[in-house]
Amino acid sequence: MELDSSNQDKNSRSCDCIKAIPGKFKAKVVEFTEKTKKIGQDDPRRIAHSAKVGLALTLVSFFYYFRPLYDGFGQAGMWAILTVVVVFEYTVGGTLLKCFNRGFATLLAGALGIGAEYLATLCGEKGEPVLLGILVFILATTSTFMRFFPSIKRRYDYGVLIFILTFSLVAVSGFRVDQIIQLAHQRLSTILIGAATCIVISIFICPVWAGQDLHNLASANIEKLASFLQVFGDEGSVVASKDVESILQGYKTVLNAKATEESLANFACWEPCHGRFKFHHPWKQYLKIGVLVRECACHIEALSGYRNSKPQVPSEFSIKIHQLCVKISLESGKSLNDLAAAIKNMVHPCATETHIKNSIAAANELKSILESSSSLAKPDLQEIMPALVVASILIDIIKCIEKISESIHELSGKAHFKNNANSTITPEKQQQKQWLHRGIVKPINDANCDHVAIEILGTCEDNSSEK
Amino acid sequence: MELDSSNQDKNSRSCDCIKAIPGKFKAKVVEFTEKTKKIGQDDPRRIAHSAKVGLALTLVSFFYYFRPLYDGFGQAGMWAILTVVVVFEYTVGGTLLKCFNRGFATLLAGALGIGAEYLATLCGEKGEPVLLGILVFILATTSTFMRFFPSIKRRYDYGVLIFILTFSLVAVSGFRVDQIIQLAHQRLSTILIGAATCIVISIFICPVWAGQDLHNLASANIEKLASFLQVFGDEGSVVASKDVESILQGYKTVLNAKATEESLANFACWEPCHGRFKFHHPWKQYLKIGVLVRECACHIEALSGYRNSKPQVPSEFSIKIHQLCVKISLESGKSLNDLAAAIKNMVHPCATETHIKNSIAAANELKSILESSSSLAKPDLQEIMPALVVASILIDIIKCIEKISESIHELSGKAHFKNNANSTITPEKQQQKQWLHRGIVKPINDANCDHVAIEILGTCEDNSSEK
Repeated sequence: MELDSSNQDKNSRSCDCIKAIPGKFKAKVVEFTEKTKKIGQDDPRRIAHSAKVGLALTLVSFFYYFRPLYDGFGQAGMWAILTVVVVFEYTVGGTLLKCFNRGFATLLAGALGIGAEYLATLCGEKGEPVLLGILVFILATTSTFMRFFPSIKRRYDYGVLIFILTFSLVAVSGFRVDQIIQLAHQRLSTILIGAATCIVISIFICPVWAGQDLHNLASANIEKLASFLQVFGDEGSVVASKDVESILQGYKTVLNAKATEESLANFACWEPCHGRFKFHHPWKQYLKIGVLVRECACHIEALSGYRNSKPQVPSEFSIKIHQLCVKISLESGKSLNDLAAAIKNMVHPCATETHIKNSIAAANELKSILESSSSLAKPDLQEIMPALVVASILIDIIKCIEKISESIHELSGKAHFKNNANSTITPEKQQQKQWLHRGIVKPINDANCDHVAIEILGTCEDNSSEK
Repeated sequence: MELDSSNQDKNSRSCDCIKAIPGKFKAKVVEFTEKTKKIGQDDPRRIAHSAKVGLALTLVSFFYYFRPLYDGFGQAGMWAILTVVVVFEYTVGGTLLKCFNRGFATLLAGALGIGAEYLATLCGEKGEPVLLGILVFILATTSTFMRFFPSIKRRYDYGVLIFILTFSLVAVSGFRVDQIIQLAHQRLSTILIGAATCIVISIFICPVWAGQDLHNLASANIEKLASFLQVFGDEGSVVASKDVESILQGYKTVLNAKATEESLANFACWEPCHGRFKFHHPWKQYLKIGVLVRECACHIEALSGYRNSKPQVPSEFSIKIHQLCVKISLESGKSLNDLAAAIKNMVHPCATETHIKNSIAAANELKSILESSSSLAKPDLQEIMPALVVASILIDIIKCIEKISESIHELSGKAHFKNNANSTITPEKQQQKQWLHRGIVKPINDANCDHVAIEILGTCEDNSSEK
């Protein structure tokens, strides 16, 4: 019996070994599937984009495949496939920019190439390759150097590449000029077919607008900072602890958003009007907002080290400072939230001012407490130092938020955001409103702040309309 | 006379108008020339790179041009030009990665394409285009989706593109299989010629190594932070005011270095050993250092708001705090400078520890002053608040520098940096050195600090060698 069982053991062990390999493989497959699923779920438009590329390529490859078309276009049909593969980008703007680059560069380089070829034939059989070699060298060298210009790199990098390629191909092809013109005609028409297919599919089937993405990104980034400040002030009493961590890490992605923002803004300029965006939507303004938001995120990074820095046995004084910090943090969060919502819904930010005023009022209160600190018996500086630092960083953050708010007001003006309730504010009304704010509106500390602020604005509106 | 002069006036004015256009044009040309000059001067390797691309293209175009070669390779010669244009990158690593991508993707897609073509011919004349269409759609869709995987996007984006292109071209070409094999042979050999030309020129003529660039960038970024801290502590007494501004803005470029660092690290993995770098140089470690350096730059951003925040009539207490802050700032700057130099010269950082210890000692002194603050009569909190905030941020920066130092020590270990004077430290000696540091070395405040620190290390070394 014992022998038997040991044999069984051995067997099962060797079975395990054999099973181990497919087991590992299975684990890999499962991991891969999960990853794929996550990427698809994170942004389902990715699946649509992949299918769109497949569709464009299948359509274009029929030009190449079917004999009647094939005979018409010859080998040039492959340029349609090449165009689709290289030009089809994720966003509409990206696709349009690449199509423009490709078309313009091909035309320019083709013309120059034919000129070079013609010039070279004048130099006799021996001079021809030498002159062509020199021309190719000069053009390739200067064009490559052009790619180091930041402004060209950003927009026309692909165009310069195609320019070098086409010029070299045309100049060196060794055909006679009349042949070249026929070839150029074929090639251009196939490139046009490829580009047109891409543009039509890109715009009319589940379009991904770079402008819309940039708009959403700006709003989402501000929202992330707002959430941080609200959780930081709130001390995690409302949100589940798991979510708290992800919210507190959210600002880190904001710090690295520069490259994405710039490329989206670059593409967005090329897009036709879509959805709520007019043709001359001020896309550059989003970049300005982005710079300020990242600056704010940097202050938040400095702040993030001071979470849970409350002293164990706080003095009355430090409790007071702490309370004011909480208030500034919450109000700042609310103002950022309002700004994010204003961008999202494309309405003029209205409650922001109130929240910023509330946080400034809290900051002033803090300052006056510090001024009167001489009345304190013995302030333990080491105990209150973290609170002071938090207060100081929060005051910096208020300044940042004021700048962000200003910048978003500018965007609102340029892009004609709707004016929500108070849509017809004349300068007089504006002044009256400011007066109301200055005189009547006291900094509000409770959770109904949003509501109260809107009420006041409403009153202001009613008053003025009565007038 | 008057009439004459007014006539002259008119003439000269109209002349001005005519001159204005060439004047504007001239200004544009001058501006462009200056820009070009600046880009060339900033990094003269750019000019060399441009000439290298020109050279490679001229060489390869001769394959296409000269009849004997042309007859051998046929139209496939154009693939050599295409390869050079697309594959030749600024750095050696970038070129190698693209060559690998192109070669591998072409082989794989070519084989699959031939398989698909063979499969399709089995389906009869009517089934063939349908099956091929379906296959192209499925492959293009899945491959495009693959490009959304961050790991694939980072390294193999170009490969996937070439894979889709080659598969579509081969599968759809409509040739018979034996024709395809001959075509594939021609095309592969021309691609190989193009790629080989690029690799040889890229490596042997003024090579630009991504690894070297990454190494220099890491060192330069740390140096920028060091300069900031030293100017911040020094209060601009030594450096000219114009330079001060550029130094104080330097940390901002550090904040945005992530993308550059990642792409350089990605390319560096592909480079053969060069200069002082072995084949398995720990390039990934530079990314870890980069993350910590950016974190430190964020704290410096928070600090930058507090320059010139010294109170007008400082109390004795705030002068004391200020002095300690200056000391921490200078010592932190020195330690970062030492770390930057260690990377630059590939030697084990030796003086860093001393400087970090000095700044920690100053921070501790600061803490003890704050603890004993209760003995103060009436501290004006508002007056000392900026100083306290600066102190607190500086303490955060010390923590950051400790982490950076640790990470660079790790790099030094992995990359076998030279050990400078104390190259043979045994664990016992290390302990002795630590003991010496703890016991004898007092935090040093004067400008000879570097010198003193090295002296002590020297003594330690001598002692142990006597033993």
